Amino acid sequence: MKARVYVSFKDSVLDPQGKAVKNALLSIGYEKVKDVRQGKFFQIEMDDMSEAEAKRQITEMAEKILSNPVIEKFEVIL
Amino acid sequence: MKARVYVSFKDSVLDPQGKAVKNALLSIGYEKVKDVRQGKFFQIEMDDMSEAEAKRQITEMAEKILSNPVIEKFEVIL
Repeated sequence: MKARVYVSFKDSVLDPQGKAVKNALLSIGYEKVKDVRQGKFFQIEMDDMSEAEAKRQITEMAEKILSNPVIEKFEVIL
Repeated sequence: MKARVYVSFKDSVLDPQGKAVKNALLSIGYEKVKDVRQGKFFQIEMDDMSEAEAKRQITEMAEKILSNPVIEKFEVIL
């Protein structure tokens, strides 16, 4: 079973890397770019277990290890 | 219009960061973790344009700026 965890800054947190990418895109002529935010994702493959149990474990990993809950939010997609 | 670009190493390329995360998860007791691969994503907001044109421009950005086609693959989701 494969799942993905998407981690990105909370909307209230500045994202200087996204800003830099936005400026780079504007500077080479992509004038319609309004905003860029950057994040990371983890593709996790689990040995055989139920979907519910995988979701539970992966959400726990995301809270404990994969994200910093002070400044980041995450999303688990199975 | 918002789109996401997912960038990750090609399957043939080693992913040491993903490996480190996998080992960290195994070491704290998530024994069912079989593989972890890490990637990044960009959430891009475009000023008003057609979906087809946004997809064309963002795919071009992904090829030219957001990914390194030698070792990375990308996926554009509108």
